[in-house]
Amino acid sequence: MYSVTIRDHFMIAHSFDNHAFGPAQSLHGATYVADVTFYSRSIGPLNTVIDIGLASEILSKVLEQFRYKNLDELPEFKGHLTTTEFMARYIHNAVKEKATGHFTGRISVKLGESPVAWASYDEE
Amino acid sequence: MYSVTIRDHFMIAHSFDNHAFGPAQSLHGATYVADVTFYSRSIGPLNTVIDIGLASEILSKVLEQFRYKNLDELPEFKGHLTTTEFMARYIHNAVKEKATGHFTGRISVKLGESPVAWASYDEE
Amino acid sequence: MYSVTIRDHFMIAHSFDNHAFGPAQSLHGATYVADVTFYSRSIGPLNTVIDIGLASEILSKVLEQFRYKNLDELPEFKGHLTTTEFMARYIHNAVKEKATGHFTGRISVKLGESPVAWASYDEE
Amino acid sequence: MYSVTIRDHFMIAHSFDNHAFGPAQSLHGATYVADVTFYSRSIGPLNTVIDIGLASEILSKVLEQFRYKNLDELPEFKGHLTTTEFMARYIHNAVKEKATGHFTGRISVKLGESPVAWASYDEE
Amino acid sequence: MYSVTIRDHFMIAHSFDNHAFGPAQSLHGATYVADVTFYSRSIGPLNTVIDIGLASEILSKVLEQFRYKNLDELPEFKGHLTTTEFMARYIHNAVKEKATGHFTGRISVKLGESPVAWASYDEE
Amino acid sequence: MYSVTIRDHFMIAHSFDNHAFGPAQSLHGATYVADVTFYSRSIGPLNTVIDIGLASEILSKVLEQFRYKNLDELPEFKGHLTTTEFMARYIHNAVKEKATGHFTGRISVKLGESPVAWASYDEE
Repeated sequence: MYSVTIRDHFMIAHSFDNHAFGPAQSLHGATYVADVTFYSRSIGPLNTVIDIGLASEILSKVLEQFRYKNLDELPEFKGHLTTTEFMARYIHNAVKEKATGHFTGRISVKLGESPVAWASYDEE
Repeated sequence: MYSVTIRDHFMIAHSFDNHAFGPAQSLHGATYVADVTFYSRSIGPLNTVIDIGLASEILSKVLEQFRYKNLDELPEFKGHLTTTEFMARYIHNAVKEKATGHFTGRISVKLGESPVAWASYDEE
Repeated sequence: MYSVTIRDHFMIAHSFDNHAFGPAQSLHGATYVADVTFYSRSIGPLNTVIDIGLASEILSKVLEQFRYKNLDELPEFKGHLTTTEFMARYIHNAVKEKATGHFTGRISVKLGESPVAWASYDEE
Repeated sequence: MYSVTIRDHFMIAHSFDNHAFGPAQSLHGATYVADVTFYSRSIGPLNTVIDIGLASEILSKVLEQFRYKNLDELPEFKGHLTTTEFMARYIHNAVKEKATGHFTGRISVKLGESPVAWASYDEE
Repeated sequence: MYSVTIRDHFMIAHSFDNHAFGPAQSLHGATYVADVTFYSRSIGPLNTVIDIGLASEILSKVLEQFRYKNLDELPEFKGHLTTTEFMARYIHNAVKEKATGHFTGRISVKLGESPVAWASYDEE
Repeated sequence: MYSVTIRDHFMIAHSFDNHAFGPAQSLHGATYVADVTFYSRSIGPLNTVIDIGLASEILSKVLEQFRYKNLDELPEFKGHLTTTEFMARYIHNAVKEKATGHFTGRISVKLGESPVAWASYDEE
């Protein structure tokens, strides 16, 4: 199995409206580092899993909707707890959709929220 | 599949009582960086794999028994070669046990011993 | 000249109320990684610049006031643009004050806002 | 499942003779960071997946043929696009071969080309 | 003293036409990670040393001339050994010139060539 | 001012025989990451501050005396608290001495003991 990963980052505000989150219930934020991995069993005549330039462009477009935003105010997240796990899956699905026509394999997303904590979502 | 990883570190001394280890036979030490990953197929109503605060606390308690210790002198390691592989599994099992009641999924542990070497243990 | 540096991190929300900041005018956030360095020409009988445990405790207390907060709502930042440069100096001054009685030398603060951007403040 | 990973790096020049690669068609280069992982279900009496010294030596020997080279001029790469994916598999196969007699399990190779892009090859 | 640093990277080929460089005499390459730091004693009404967006744009334009190039073929480097030290100063001077009108303070450049080696140039 | 930095690492055991060190009084250890920086105002005809190969060799020889050792048992450290600050200066002096004849400029040493703590020594 081959894979290619690209990294980008974005800065957002959000809050968690549930007492289970303790101090993180209040409005705070994060610099999220997103690593998106594309998997493929073969690499074709160009010896690539996916064009890295195209992959970076797709990820950048997906992240554009979050950059410098308060996730609490985005309609698509209304009623959702925007945890790192949730955001990893959301980014996964958005990249998957935008990559349609260019890439059909498995995609995984790892999302770092701090030097000591990260989450991931991986289709299986 | 979702996952959440938390990182902590600890400093220990140990030695390897077997000629196969060459210079590492003598008493030396390591700063170990432990990455513990919790896996889950679903994330429930809180959109979390596990409460990160709880997970960090569990890991911290597990590592407490090793912090600033000489592993050669710990009764639980008597007769064991405390390699990075071995320690990864030991930490895995201890986290698994301490997480009982809170988390029942798969757990993996990656243990870094230097910028160029690490080991991991992962149930399968 | 000797120095000792300790690292901690915190997550906040804020906005920049000035058109010069473009998209960063809207409410967003950051995971800030704070590196605080203590300098000393000599290290005394304990061969330390400062007790690392004490230094970490001081930094942690300083950062406590920001953790999971919206900086826009903190009275001490009313009317201030909480840029990374500004926050580096603010943390510097707060650490300096809290260290009084324990450490009298030069202190510098480096504050990372993303993998590709950071700021620092250093007395001179 | 246990694993051990070792890291090394090397610097090469190469070009991509296909218009799909855009500006990377021209002769350029890379500092490649190679992470080679050895997997094993058990760790035997020494509590190791593989001797780390031996593993490092094997990887170093494999990389020796590339260090400070122009990949375009190496006979073994004649007619091949030496993408990061391709190089990850090539290094995988070379390590696998050189490890024969010492290690028979699964091996994976992750090859970093920049702080924001990497590829991997993993037998399955 | 305040400072702001931005990071970017680029991939090049080059060779060192002098026997002192041993194996690095032959054509090889590097992924260079450039950290450019802007220093200022005061931060003005915007609480910034320099607009980060502008600084990133300036650095990107400077690096554009090197991206995916063979430094041996660039007329400006004819007869020069393009060591990391030399490149750090060259980038420093180019950033300094491009920043004219926007920033007049001290600038330093750190250029990483591998995980274990880097060089810097700093006006004094 | 130019500089060149090289990185190496080593693993040791030690203890701190003074109640001020709390839990670190007992025998433990560390993976130390050593960054040694060589400074020079000019770079001469080779455009280098120092030959990187030579610098790496010098550092490696200096660290050889510590690798896989218990610092408490080394005669040169008898009666000394081998803190990170102390070790940074010791390595500084040893590199300085070994570099005699090759390099006469300023040298600094940064010594990392964990992901969140490091010390440095710098002649001034």
